[in-house]
Amino acid sequence: MSLEVVNRVPELRAAVSRARASGLRIGLVPTMGALHAGHGALLDRARAECGCVVVSIFVNPLQFNRKDDYERYARTLPADLAFCRERGADLVFTPELEEIYPREQRVYVDAPSLSEHLCGMHRPGHFRCVATVVMKLFNMVQPDCAYFGEKDAQQLAIIQAMVADLNIPIEIVPVPTVRESDGLAISSRNVRLDHEQRQSATALHRALCAAAASIASGGGVADAREAACKILKDEPSLQVEYLEIVDPESMRPVDEIRGSVRIAGAVWAGETRLIDNLLQRSAQ
Amino acid sequence: MSLEVVNRVPELRAAVSRARASGLRIGLVPTMGALHAGHGALLDRARAECGCVVVSIFVNPLQFNRKDDYERYARTLPADLAFCRERGADLVFTPELEEIYPREQRVYVDAPSLSEHLCGMHRPGHFRCVATVVMKLFNMVQPDCAYFGEKDAQQLAIIQAMVADLNIPIEIVPVPTVRESDGLAISSRNVRLDHEQRQSATALHRALCAAAASIASGGGVADAREAACKILKDEPSLQVEYLEIVDPESMRPVDEIRGSVRIAGAVWAGETRLIDNLLQRSAQ
Repeated sequence: MSLEVVNRVPELRAAVSRARASGLRIGLVPTMGALHAGHGALLDRARAECGCVVVSIFVNPLQFNRKDDYERYARTLPADLAFCRERGADLVFTPELEEIYPREQRVYVDAPSLSEHLCGMHRPGHFRCVATVVMKLFNMVQPDCAYFGEKDAQQLAIIQAMVADLNIPIEIVPVPTVRESDGLAISSRNVRLDHEQRQSATALHRALCAAAASIASGGGVADAREAACKILKDEPSLQVEYLEIVDPESMRPVDEIRGSVRIAGAVWAGETRLIDNLLQRSAQ
Repeated sequence: MSLEVVNRVPELRAAVSRARASGLRIGLVPTMGALHAGHGALLDRARAECGCVVVSIFVNPLQFNRKDDYERYARTLPADLAFCRERGADLVFTPELEEIYPREQRVYVDAPSLSEHLCGMHRPGHFRCVATVVMKLFNMVQPDCAYFGEKDAQQLAIIQAMVADLNIPIEIVPVPTVRESDGLAISSRNVRLDHEQRQSATALHRALCAAAASIASGGGVADAREAACKILKDEPSLQVEYLEIVDPESMRPVDEIRGSVRIAGAVWAGETRLIDNLLQRSAQ
């Protein structure tokens, strides 16, 4: 199968319609490009489950809080297309900015209660713009299912809530985080780390693991946070933005550990922001 | 054709799927019941354009700002079903509250810039809840087109913006306001008016017509508003909530009349709120 690349919505809809008319299950992998092994896991899962795999590549300016982060965001389209081809995608949608936002956006999808904590607290408006662009892509493609990485846990929770609360007939498939051999979650922003920052960055995952171990052995919220923060404090080159233990559905910090919790953290290594999280069941 | 009545989303989707599989165009007429000649015009238009006409009847509690207004809202299901049958609807969706809101709603569709003025200013949160429930109904039915009355002009503008800005593949069909012989816009709330209020209520339409005539003869914004307010002042039993001349797309008050404008008003007759509007082209 050859890879079809389109950049206009009508072409996209026509290509998807042909696949649907052939009875194929349509899977969407929404990305901002700079594709890496994390996206690879999404693509592999989609390929295994769907007859037609659609990848969207669009760096959404609205969801960036810092202009420099938007401008510095890696854009590697030729490599991304080769990656999609190798992984067996059928259709790639690479719209220009005006194709997604032909006029000033007036209507937004918002999940205020799910955006209060964690990244939402530190990136005002970010998730509103993520939910809105994902809704747009959902309506452009109308896939049967869509694939999202667990690394962006709050984003995943918001998209799952959006689909449930707005009755969108799309199945959301969460895909586990892919990590480097030393535990660092793979991210498009990792390339910005210098050698020393790259070494320190592993502390985030180690901190989450320490919190998870504390919870697994019956520790409470304070114990778990302390275990994590102790590790992060030993890396003076990392600045902690947050480290919280939250309910995996509501994304609100919990007072006590019951059932499953998500341990989520964000740190800055210089000018680069890194996030990661782990799901952990309580000891009881 | 007999009328099918369903109250669960899976039944609704199954019935619509059968119609779609037969190649029929699906038209949705979303209503809160208490059907009258205004809804009749929506149904007639849908019947003329679609092979399968779906009517939803759901009084959405979230969009009411006053609990008493919600509780007093007319509920006339047997008559509504007879009305749908006579007008040739194919499918009526009459969900219970829990079918639409099985849990607390976390995700909303919002059009903040379009909700700042007119009804949006006086009914905080109203249009967010209207847009959200319409989005839910759109995703439940996935119609080819949906019918909305021009009487609720701000609602119509917000739904049109929602469809455009979120790339929803549904055609929105605006249907002109239906009026009593004396000009009063037909509304489910008109039955609450006593004899005297019913007489006074015509002043709203007369006021809009006076503003339209002023604009047609070259009057400016101040002239048009003055012409309308003069008529409303002569009806001491009406309390004016707003009377504005707005851009028909942005729903913002205009400073000068250029192209088409919408003249929109809301008044209270005792405890009953009435709205109406007219579209008018400038004299130039």
